[in-house]
Parts: sequence; structure tokens; C-alpha cells
Amino acid sequence: MKVFCQLKLNEKEKQLLSNGLEDHEVIYAQEYEEDVAKELFMDCHVAFGNPPLEWIQHTVNLTWIQLESVGLDPYQEEINKNNIYFSSLKGFFDRPVAETVIAGILALYRELPALITAQQANKWIKDEIRPKCETIKDKKIVILGAGSIGKTVKDHLLPFQPGITLYDIAPERSDYYSLQELDLSLKNTDILIGCLPENDKTINFLNAYRFSLLPESAIIVNVGRGTLIDEDVLITLLKDKKLRGAFLDVTREEPIPADSELWQTPNLILSQHTAGGSKDEVIHKVQFFLDNFYNYQNGQIKNLVNP
Amino acid sequence: MKVFCQLKLNEKEKQLLSNGLEDHEVIYAQEYEEDVAKELFMDCHVAFGNPPLEWIQHTVNLTWIQLESVGLDPYQEEINKNNIYFSSLKGFFDRPVAETVIAGILALYRELPALITAQQANKWIKDEIRPKCETIKDKKIVILGAGSIGKTVKDHLLPFQPGITLYDIAPERSDYYSLQELDLSLKNTDILIGCLPENDKTINFLNAYRFSLLPESAIIVNVGRGTLIDEDVLITLLKDKKLRGAFLDVTREEPIPADSELWQTPNLILSQHTAGGSKDEVIHKVQFFLDNFYNYQNGQIKNLVNP
Repeated sequence: MKVFCQLKLNEKEKQLLSNGLEDHEVIYAQEYEEDVAKELFMDCHVAFGNPPLEWIQHTVNLTWIQLESVGLDPYQEEINKNNIYFSSLKGFFDRPVAETVIAGILALYRELPALITAQQANKWIKDEIRPKCETIKDKKIVILGAGSIGKTVKDHLLPFQPGITLYDIAPERSDYYSLQELDLSLKNTDILIGCLPENDKTINFLNAYRFSLLPESAIIVNVGRGTLIDEDVLITLLKDKKLRGAFLDVTREEPIPADSELWQTPNLILSQHTAGGSKDEVIHKVQFFLDNFYNYQNGQIKNLVNP
Repeated sequence: MKVFCQLKLNEKEKQLLSNGLEDHEVIYAQEYEEDVAKELFMDCHVAFGNPPLEWIQHTVNLTWIQLESVGLDPYQEEINKNNIYFSSLKGFFDRPVAETVIAGILALYRELPALITAQQANKWIKDEIRPKCETIKDKKIVILGAGSIGKTVKDHLLPFQPGITLYDIAPERSDYYSLQELDLSLKNTDILIGCLPENDKTINFLNAYRFSLLPESAIIVNVGRGTLIDEDVLITLLKDKKLRGAFLDVTREEPIPADSELWQTPNLILSQHTAGGSKDEVIHKVQFFLDNFYNYQNGQIKNLVNP
């Protein structure tokens, strides 16, 4: 079988993939110019990674593609056609993302940006900082998105003993049953965590109206999609101290343009879409693919996303 | 009864204390010059806070002192005399300190100092940072000190699913039974967390020899006492990349002198002894004292430290 790998791998990662597929031919996109890679892709039966949509639209041999993402853009239409099996990495990023959420909340609550900045200037600011510090204990937390990331975030927060409520667009997995209930609860929310995918219902979900419901002491964390938040509103609220702070892993534009106002907004930490990352991320992706390749050969692909 | 308050309180905190002691006379040190305060102290039966040792050595009326610290220096000798009841704030700082430990580990693992520094310069560094990020999951953690802080740290870490071992000088509450066992385990330790009090056995516990046992990928967190660590050795190891990073809440000298090498040591975060702090720290201390004042009147002082 011909397997196409769209991921850029180092030697160790290549070795792992090639060894795992020793009875098959592996084509590494990184070894070819784009037009040659595209031609080779047309011959392949299986693909690993996120190749250009247009390649997939023209292939006739492809039976299965293992994406290296949880998100399905820009493939949704192809997925719906049901000609090719698509599987995602759903669940793959849950733990690093959840750890990053905790990192973000605690960086804001333990005043790490101010401490790190003071350290750059050899400056002792204990007496100013210590009374500003806060704890997660007893805080009221609302997690937007009750998927696997939202639930993993909740699991990591439990020993801190906050109050946690899950909200989801799909009411059956939500602690709230309506937007009205959610909006009512926001005025008592200390920590609002966005773990929602992007769709018609979630774009601009955190708009001026919904932000206005939050108390000035609230902090926001977003690890879902950048479009969840009206960033201009957020910037103004942070500048006017109408919110205590925000930690954004995702933003509307990525990379964030050098002239974006986000960079210098006070009490905002930008983690630059690193939340899902880890030193062994690619190795683990290859391992996931190899496991799923075995599943594929047995007709039991994991994480299928076709309707 | 005359109650002496050594803590500096704001109006709200004073109100709380005075209301709670309405049948008693409260003397606030902050309202007097030091020599007058000392004279007033001599008349008091109860004290709240950490007054100068010499005052305590000369008082004859004092029956109980509620310290505002967990540590007992410089009072140990007075405590051993057993003329005055001493109680500490043992347990009081467990949760903020544990949250700070998690903040510190995750700040190092999610590369927050580099991200915050890049943000100051409007600089997108995702591709450089993401492959350096790490997760607590599956890491091997050794917590030095199995007191209430060490145990609370462990509780907070459990959902991250690392391996955790508690070491204590008191072997009955330790997972290791000897220093030899601890030292053997250090070569596989990813995260070493210091939660030890200061005494003959813990001063310089993390010396050049013990540091040399750790792998280069290890990180250190210290929230116990600054004397645990040979700081010169730590600075050299971090500069030479023989350790991945360190998060120190406590240091040998506090405030850290402006010309200390610690400030500019790479991969070191200094949280400036803020770990136990929180916005409501003083209010909570007053509440603790009032509860314990009630206990005192009933002959059941909590957190007594006399032998």
C-alpha cells in the first residue's frame, strides 16, 4: 500500500514511521517539490497529515486520511461527501491543553508576568504583589465546551476545590440548559474558560454583551478558537480594568501581526497557540497514526469524523 | 483581657478583630512608636503576630501568642521553656503554596517566561516554543517534605498523572526510608519540589553532590526555606544548562539584593516569597486568630507548638 506523509518529520520520527509501515511504501512530502508531492499523492491509498484540500478533491485512490488536528477545517465538505474516511486527533491534545489552562489561570492569579518583568529589572516587589495574589480555591468557574478538552480541564481543576460548571451548545452534556441560564450565572463567574470549536453558534460568542455580564474581577482563558472572542472589546475591557486578566492561546489572526494591539494589552498573556504542544508531540502523532493504521486494516478506524 | 496585635491591619481588618474581641481591650502595635508599643505589650495576656523575641523574653503577663507564621524562628528557645503557649499558622498557607508550586512547574513547562518576554517585543515565536513545551503527565516527581504543604502539593498534582514520591526526614511519613534511597531515585527525577522546614538536616540539603545526581532535564521548585539550596551551585548549573529550570519562592537573602546573580540566571523564575499570599490573607489570619482565641478561652488552643 502507498502511504503519504504530509507531516515534516525528523530522522528519528521518520524511522519510527517507516519501521511501523515496513511492508508498505511511505512517501514523505518533505522530500519533494510541491508539484511532485501532489502527483505522488494522487497514487496513495492512505494519507497522514493535513494536505491541501484541492489535492484531496482530485484524488481517486485515497481511502483514508488521518488528520493531524482536532479541527476539521477546511475539509468539512469533503468529509460530508463520504467518499474518503477522515479521522481526527480528537483527544490527542486534551492533556497538554488542560495543563496550559491551569498554567494560564495560575500565571494570572500568582502575578507571574509582573514578577518576571520585575526580575528582568533586578527589582524586589514582594510587598506590592503578595496582596494581589489569588487562589483557585473557592472560585466560581464556567467552562464553555463540554467536549474532551473541557472535561479534562475540569478534572485537573477539581483538587483546587473551585465551583465548576460546564456549559455546552449541546445541552445534553451541559450543566446549564440554556443561554439564559449561562448568562445569568456570568455575573458570579470568576474564571471563564473557552474550549469551544468554531461554528455558527460560537463565533463572537464572547461579545460586548456577554463580557458586560462578567464582574471586574473575572479572568478569561481561551484555548478553543480565536473567533470565540470579540478581541477589540476584550482589549478595551482590559485597558479599562473592567476585567482582571486574560490568557489567550488562540487569536483571530495567527501569527498575531507585529502591529496588533493585543501584544501590549495590560493583564493579557498570549501563549501563541502552543497549548497543544509538547516535546514529544510529533512522535506521539506518529504512534497514534501507526495504531490507527492497524485499526484501519481491521476496518475499525478510531476517531472517524464522517457523518 | 488585653490582647496585643502585632500585625499591621487596614480599617476593615481592624474592625473584624475589634468586633470579634468586643469584651476585650485590643492594642494595635501600628498605632504607637516602637518603645511605647513594647511597654504596652508587657501588660498584655495574649498576643497575635510575631513580635520581637526580646519583648517576649521580658514579658511576665503573656500566656499565649498566636504567631502569624508556620516557621518558629526565632522563638524556638522560648517555646521550649514552656512558660507561654505558642501556636503557629500550620496549614494556613498549604493551598496558596500548593497552587504556586503548580504555577511554577507549569510556567517552566509551558515556557511562559519566553512567551511573556516575546510578547513585550511583539514577537511571534510559536514554532520555536511549541516543541520545547512539556507536560506534567508521566513525569517523575519527588516532593521533599511530607508535611501538610507537601501533601497538599501532591493532592493538586494527582490529576496530572505523574509518578509522585514523598521524601521526609521523618521516615514514618516518607515513601523512602533512607537518604540512600532518595539519592538513588534522583537520577530519574524530572521535578524536585522542596517543602522542607529549616533545621540542621535541611540546610544545604540540595548541595553540589545532590544536584549532580539529577538529570539535565530536571526542574527544581523550592517553597520551603531558602537555605535548602546551595544557590551558587544552582546558578552555575542553570547557566551551563545542566538543569532545565528552577522556580524559587524562597531564597537565602530576602529581599534579594539588587546585585544578586539570581535575577539574571537563565531559566530561573523568582516569585519573591509570594507563594503563601492571597488577596484575603490578612482577613483570613484575623479569622483564624479569632477562632483560636475562642479555643484558648476553652483551654483547647489549636496548632500549639510547645513540646
